[in-house]
Amino acid sequence: ENFIHLCNPHLEKMKEDILYHFALGTGTHDFPALFGDVKFVCVGGSPSRMKAFITYIAEELGLGSPGCDYPNICAGTDRYAMYKVGPVLSVSHGMGIPSISIMLHELIKLLYHAKCSNITIIRIGTSGGIGLEPGSVVITRQSVDATFKPQFEQVILGKTVIRSTNLDEQLAKELMQCSKEINQFNTVIGNTMCTLDFYEGQGRLDGAICLYNEEEKLQYLKEAYDSGVRNIEMESSVFAAMCNLSGVKAAVVCVTLLNRLEGDQISSSHDVLVEYQQRPQKLVGYFIKKSLGKV
Amino acid sequence: ENFIHLCNPHLEKMKEDILYHFALGTGTHDFPALFGDVKFVCVGGSPSRMKAFITYIAEELGLGSPGCDYPNICAGTDRYAMYKVGPVLSVSHGMGIPSISIMLHELIKLLYHAKCSNITIIRIGTSGGIGLEPGSVVITRQSVDATFKPQFEQVILGKTVIRSTNLDEQLAKELMQCSKEINQFNTVIGNTMCTLDFYEGQGRLDGAICLYNEEEKLQYLKEAYDSGVRNIEMESSVFAAMCNLSGVKAAVVCVTLLNRLEGDQISSSHDVLVEYQQRPQKLVGYFIKKSLGKV
Repeated sequence: ENFIHLCNPHLEKMKEDILYHFALGTGTHDFPALFGDVKFVCVGGSPSRMKAFITYIAEELGLGSPGCDYPNICAGTDRYAMYKVGPVLSVSHGMGIPSISIMLHELIKLLYHAKCSNITIIRIGTSGGIGLEPGSVVITRQSVDATFKPQFEQVILGKTVIRSTNLDEQLAKELMQCSKEINQFNTVIGNTMCTLDFYEGQGRLDGAICLYNEEEKLQYLKEAYDSGVRNIEMESSVFAAMCNLSGVKAAVVCVTLLNRLEGDQISSSHDVLVEYQQRPQKLVGYFIKKSLGKV
Repeated sequence: ENFIHLCNPHLEKMKEDILYHFALGTGTHDFPALFGDVKFVCVGGSPSRMKAFITYIAEELGLGSPGCDYPNICAGTDRYAMYKVGPVLSVSHGMGIPSISIMLHELIKLLYHAKCSNITIIRIGTSGGIGLEPGSVVITRQSVDATFKPQFEQVILGKTVIRSTNLDEQLAKELMQCSKEINQFNTVIGNTMCTLDFYEGQGRLDGAICLYNEEEKLQYLKEAYDSGVRNIEMESSVFAAMCNLSGVKAAVVCVTLLNRLEGDQISSSHDVLVEYQQRPQKLVGYFIKKSLGKV
């Protein structure tokens, strides 16, 4: 049994643990009863997308009834949304490293308090692609920073500590195999660049501030491509670092909404973007079904 | 007339500008008609708090009717929520620097496209206090980083650029004067530390990961206090930096939910926390009323 590895000796001394941003606490909620059977956790930025995912996976696993409404477990707050069906937990994390980091601290403690074991966490997200047809799905080999290094800089008490952003190789391969089996859209394994900013940090020309030109932008994106980067998003590095430290198997599966070598604006129609965003859900849904022997 | 200063020569060449995370665009929405009369923009992390604020300010300005429901202008997305009444716009920004940065890029472009002038932007938020009674309100003098320097590091195309985090001194003084006039809660002017993380980055002992002890934590917080820091939050530095560059008058007004010298967990009752969170709203609501000659 692979339990959560909690890297914090202080927690054992606390009588009660309030997970403030989930509006849950060990003094008010029975975590083992509520969450003890969780095996798969899927996280993504948008609360409505994570609600759509729980509805989808419930039907796929034969655990839902059509039109069933899944209650938001974090209804006491609007910071994050959380849904559960059977062994699957679906949690939103907002946008950016700090936002997903708060969520992961509380999620990892939740799984620990619930005595969960053999957990797999997968981020299903959106991203900008580099050199890929829009709608392609990228399974992350390594999450790299804005200088293409596979590392995450965590500031602790004012000092910077470097953490590894390794992800589970075997899990990435299994997900790639699943994509081949469902054979519905282009999927690649590649590096994912994780930035602190959507506009200047990703070389966009269409933000409120832009002090470089198109040539410099394209040079940067091509350097990223040459180093193995296939997509850019804003959460994978701290996600990989924290899952690593907690001994949890983790993967990042993001669809690319555009090809950044061809533009900056996300201008596809609403319907096309909705269909793109379902692709990581379909891939991870199939993976979960297969893992449970239901394929 | 003080118009928005747009630091991006590329935008003039674009036929259309899609503000993706607002689900608004210049090709589909008439920005001057929708937003041209805006003079005050209030931003805060939580969408429901920003909705509560628009209801409150509408009543204060005599522009609302009891029980009136204000539509979410960004209803086409769940990334941010936006509400408007008269000259006041209320926008949520999620948690952390990257999340507020995306919102501010699109907000500044929105105000520019709408040809707004003489804008004041105020962040009304929550924070952890240092050496203050919980419920105290801090008006930010300077936003400082985790080493107590008044600067923001922006990564652009992989290189780090330092930006100033100055806020409007006169506006901070006017807000302090408003607090004296309403005389309902303790308010101070002080420095605000802006971190990339809520747990390790703020010296908490109750995250999923903690590799330091209580002494080291308290030493760090006391150093922060000695340098003039009175509260800690996660958005003020990029907020100050971007407002600075865009020539917009800006202030940060945050309530402190706890005194970090006495603990890490936010354990006050729901009702107490709700009342605390109304304090920046009351202060800024009074300031807006006074600015409009309605006090």
